[in-house]
Amino acid sequence: MIDPWGNIEISNYEKVFREFGLTKFPSNWSDKLDHYLFKRNIIIAHRDFGKIMQRIKEKKPFIQMTGIASSGKLHFGHKINLDLFKFFKSKGARTYFCIANIDGYVSRPKVKSMEEANEYAINNLAHVLAYGFTKKDVYIQTKKDKIYYSFAFEISKKITEAMFRAVYGHLDLGKAAANMLQYADILHPQLKKYEGKMPSVTSIGVDQDPHARLTRDLAKRINYNLELPSFLYFRHHGGLQKGMKMSASDPYSAVFLDDSIQDVKYKVERSFTGGKDTLKEQKKKGGNPDICKVYEFYKFHYPNDKFVIDIYSKCKKGEILCKECKEKCIAFLSSFLSKHQKKFKRYLGIARRMIL
Amino acid sequence: MIDPWGNIEISNYEKVFREFGLTKFPSNWSDKLDHYLFKRNIIIAHRDFGKIMQRIKEKKPFIQMTGIASSGKLHFGHKINLDLFKFFKSKGARTYFCIANIDGYVSRPKVKSMEEANEYAINNLAHVLAYGFTKKDVYIQTKKDKIYYSFAFEISKKITEAMFRAVYGHLDLGKAAANMLQYADILHPQLKKYEGKMPSVTSIGVDQDPHARLTRDLAKRINYNLELPSFLYFRHHGGLQKGMKMSASDPYSAVFLDDSIQDVKYKVERSFTGGKDTLKEQKKKGGNPDICKVYEFYKFHYPNDKFVIDIYSKCKKGEILCKECKEKCIAFLSSFLSKHQKKFKRYLGIARRMIL
Repeated sequence: MIDPWGNIEISNYEKVFREFGLTKFPSNWSDKLDHYLFKRNIIIAHRDFGKIMQRIKEKKPFIQMTGIASSGKLHFGHKINLDLFKFFKSKGARTYFCIANIDGYVSRPKVKSMEEANEYAINNLAHVLAYGFTKKDVYIQTKKDKIYYSFAFEISKKITEAMFRAVYGHLDLGKAAANMLQYADILHPQLKKYEGKMPSVTSIGVDQDPHARLTRDLAKRINYNLELPSFLYFRHHGGLQKGMKMSASDPYSAVFLDDSIQDVKYKVERSFTGGKDTLKEQKKKGGNPDICKVYEFYKFHYPNDKFVIDIYSKCKKGEILCKECKEKCIAFLSSFLSKHQKKFKRYLGIARRMIL
Repeated sequence: MIDPWGNIEISNYEKVFREFGLTKFPSNWSDKLDHYLFKRNIIIAHRDFGKIMQRIKEKKPFIQMTGIASSGKLHFGHKINLDLFKFFKSKGARTYFCIANIDGYVSRPKVKSMEEANEYAINNLAHVLAYGFTKKDVYIQTKKDKIYYSFAFEISKKITEAMFRAVYGHLDLGKAAANMLQYADILHPQLKKYEGKMPSVTSIGVDQDPHARLTRDLAKRINYNLELPSFLYFRHHGGLQKGMKMSASDPYSAVFLDDSIQDVKYKVERSFTGGKDTLKEQKKKGGNPDICKVYEFYKFHYPNDKFVIDIYSKCKKGEILCKECKEKCIAFLSSFLSKHQKKFKRYLGIARRMIL
């Protein structure tokens, strides 16, 4: 069976879903939404997303809140979050994309000063603006209204040591503070000053679900009339080598939005594939796209479904070999990045003025 | 020996001072400052106050930061803090008096909502304005610039679980959050946006010293060029009954700035004194002002030194009995409160507009 979207593999997640109380994303919703992230099973699960489906159906507004902690450069793992954000915006979402510069500094030991976090923030913001976000889609933690900060402190009253430790296993005050801001990030769009009570959606990795559950619990416990926030869960986007995460701290694990064409070439050429030991064997038996990092890039990023299905099928049949496939991937990423980076440069100054 | 200012009793504190690393407030500084709180040994100790003495001598500005958590009504225990604040203002201090409404809600289980904290804040603020503070002397946590909030979160990075637990013995996130704001309260006046690096003084009870030490430690550890804040320590102002604290939760423990003349009369008449069992015995042997709650009110509040020394001496000699002494005290407090409460009413509307 040809399954270019790796739906089978999701069965590995199902135990985790049951444990966490997540629901597998239903295929009839994916069909309705008709967007590559759903069709390709990159969004694998949800919590309470029915409310958002309903709002989209009724053409009523809903909140979408997401963001990036300013602790490193953006890579293609972040890009899917940006794609989803643009999609929901097109469906009528009220947009809250957080440039989390306080979070970046406070919660990451490697970020040594607010100045450093702000430099990451400028870089990240210029990328999202270059990617088509407007200034209004975005907010910067340090520039946010004071009501947002008061709200963060107010929420803290409802969190005991035991609750916090159960979810995060530690209690360093800096990390706790960053979490307080994250609850406020997700819930504050429902304050009167912003949209008021309204369904909201935030997209996260499955490993972040305990955080989502605590946020929903807090939404019930604070003295506000709030809709419980909904969550979507991304399939994990692996790094370029086997068993590796895309990580800002390892430049060879990921393709970054700042990477040069040379970088892309170097990284993709050396990436892990599903190729066989010999060309002969591969031509005969075909490759294995399901474990291939190059194919993963296509699946997570290549806009044209037909092209991706085609590559998958050709690979399986041994009709395309790794060298050619990598060249296509390098060409795709290079073309994407060179266009994007031209815009990025134009937004750097704007981003700097917005952050500082 | 006649010692109306209870200097002897301070020997009880000395062990605590040594343990905490506090320094007894030197009598030559008290003489120089020439204010009742120093002369009467109500300020009993300090940490690094020499810097402030120097600034006063050189007629250079310094910061004084103090405030009130919005979790109850003000009583005469709070008044001494207001008196000290006015005194330092007259000596050229840059004034930062915090109406801590977030703190009041977040750190006190009995305060059930921000609305409730804000009602206390309005009451407290109207009192301090009626007592001669200007709007510029005061800031309200929820109305503070966002840089103050960012700064509070930024500080949190330098606090590990172990540090926090060593000082406070717990880690409920609400209380931790309130503490984060308190560090920001004490340190933020030295940010560039405010006064820049400058000696600062905050007055607290001896039991709050671990908090002061942690704040000084943080001032060293954050990436800012800050003067370590100085602290003054108040002698404990007891409640109206033996062994009782002045407490907002027990209306009979304290005289409140909102109390009616009837309340004052009722409370003072029933307060604990140093009187003997019989009038005859008291006339013969004299009373004991050192343990008397009525005398404590004179010592902590009566402006005229000579009057207070006189009462002390007459009591000791049995020349004044409790009934007469209480009547004088009721007259003094009633006169003070009736004048103050007239002004207080005028400021209530202003305070409400400032808080909400």
